[in-house]
Amino acid sequence: FPGQGGSRAAAGPCVAPLQWEGRWVMYDHSTGRNSRAAVSYDGLNQRVRVLQQHKKHTPCQRFYEYIYLYQSMVMFQIDQKTKDCSKLALTDSFDPFDIPDNSTFEDQYFIGGPDDNVEVQEWSDRKPARQHETWVGVYTKKDCYPVQETYTKNSSVTTSTRFFNLQLGISDPDIFSPPSTCQSARLERMAETVC
Amino acid sequence: FPGQGGSRAAAGPCVAPLQWEGRWVMYDHSTGRNSRAAVSYDGLNQRVRVLQQHKKHTPCQRFYEYIYLYQSMVMFQIDQKTKDCSKLALTDSFDPFDIPDNSTFEDQYFIGGPDDNVEVQEWSDRKPARQHETWVGVYTKKDCYPVQETYTKNSSVTTSTRFFNLQLGISDPDIFSPPSTCQSARLERMAETVC
Repeated sequence: FPGQGGSRAAAGPCVAPLQWEGRWVMYDHSTGRNSRAAVSYDGLNQRVRVLQQHKKHTPCQRFYEYIYLYQSMVMFQIDQKTKDCSKLALTDSFDPFDIPDNSTFEDQYFIGGPDDNVEVQEWSDRKPARQHETWVGVYTKKDCYPVQETYTKNSSVTTSTRFFNLQLGISDPDIFSPPSTCQSARLERMAETVC
Repeated sequence: FPGQGGSRAAAGPCVAPLQWEGRWVMYDHSTGRNSRAAVSYDGLNQRVRVLQQHKKHTPCQRFYEYIYLYQSMVMFQIDQKTKDCSKLALTDSFDPFDIPDNSTFEDQYFIGGPDDNVEVQEWSDRKPARQHETWVGVYTKKDCYPVQETYTKNSSVTTSTRFFNLQLGISDPDIFSPPSTCQSARLERMAETVC
């Protein structure tokens, strides 16, 4: 097994689709919480819209819509029930869902059963003998859709996000426009749990 | 989204294959370490063989073969290089890679891109309004192969295991027989890191 990997990816990373919609489950290792959402990703215009989903009975929890506009470096947080809106400055720059050109090929494998599977590649930002990875991305081999992204800090995973039900394109570009309640938005983040 | 799930799984969980071979990556959240292995799973005879794989340069690490024999409640740990062998008692009973009949249906979705994906179902041991989940299993819808298993304790994930390159059956049943060095095995577990 040593030396596995590398050779099968001579062509470099695939190019991920620039616009898609689907769902994700993001696991936050510090809080131990899973966050499910419907996601619209517009890498072309550096916009992401995240609509939190609630499946279980969670009386203390508020569910929000998040609209990230990286070209303006602002994020809107909208209460799905009350439409209360907060407008917040973004501090991190846009991090597209793709595999950067200088990534390190880690692995290639099939997820699923022998007759029903999807082939994926795993890439990271590891630099052999120089830098541990802080990011690992699993993308489909065929069309380069994201399957899983994992972020690590001080060799502990911080978040891992699994993607599903992905479709190419944005069905309704208006979803990136915040509602009218955001015109007089508060400037503090609203809490996700209220009791 | 509320109420999603449940209705689409009226038939109950699928029946997972009893014998397969493939690979896994197990992430241990307490140590922050990923452990890659080639795995042979024999649910019929309650045996699992795990051959640790080393891809990166890891001078301080020992790599082992593990043979779990749950019918005898023993586990052999064999140093891949020296063939040193330890024989250890198993304390937990056999936990097959399948979806127990009384599991709760959580979700169903496609992993991958629109034209290249695998449909999976997510099940857990959650009891609505009574018990948080301690296990979540993701299995392919078609043939019920494992995709991911996650264990949680006190609502924090302890291990998550992703499965790939699965093939039906056991190619060589002899791999469950420990080597001759195990006839005079030591009874203490050998360390995974030595410097």
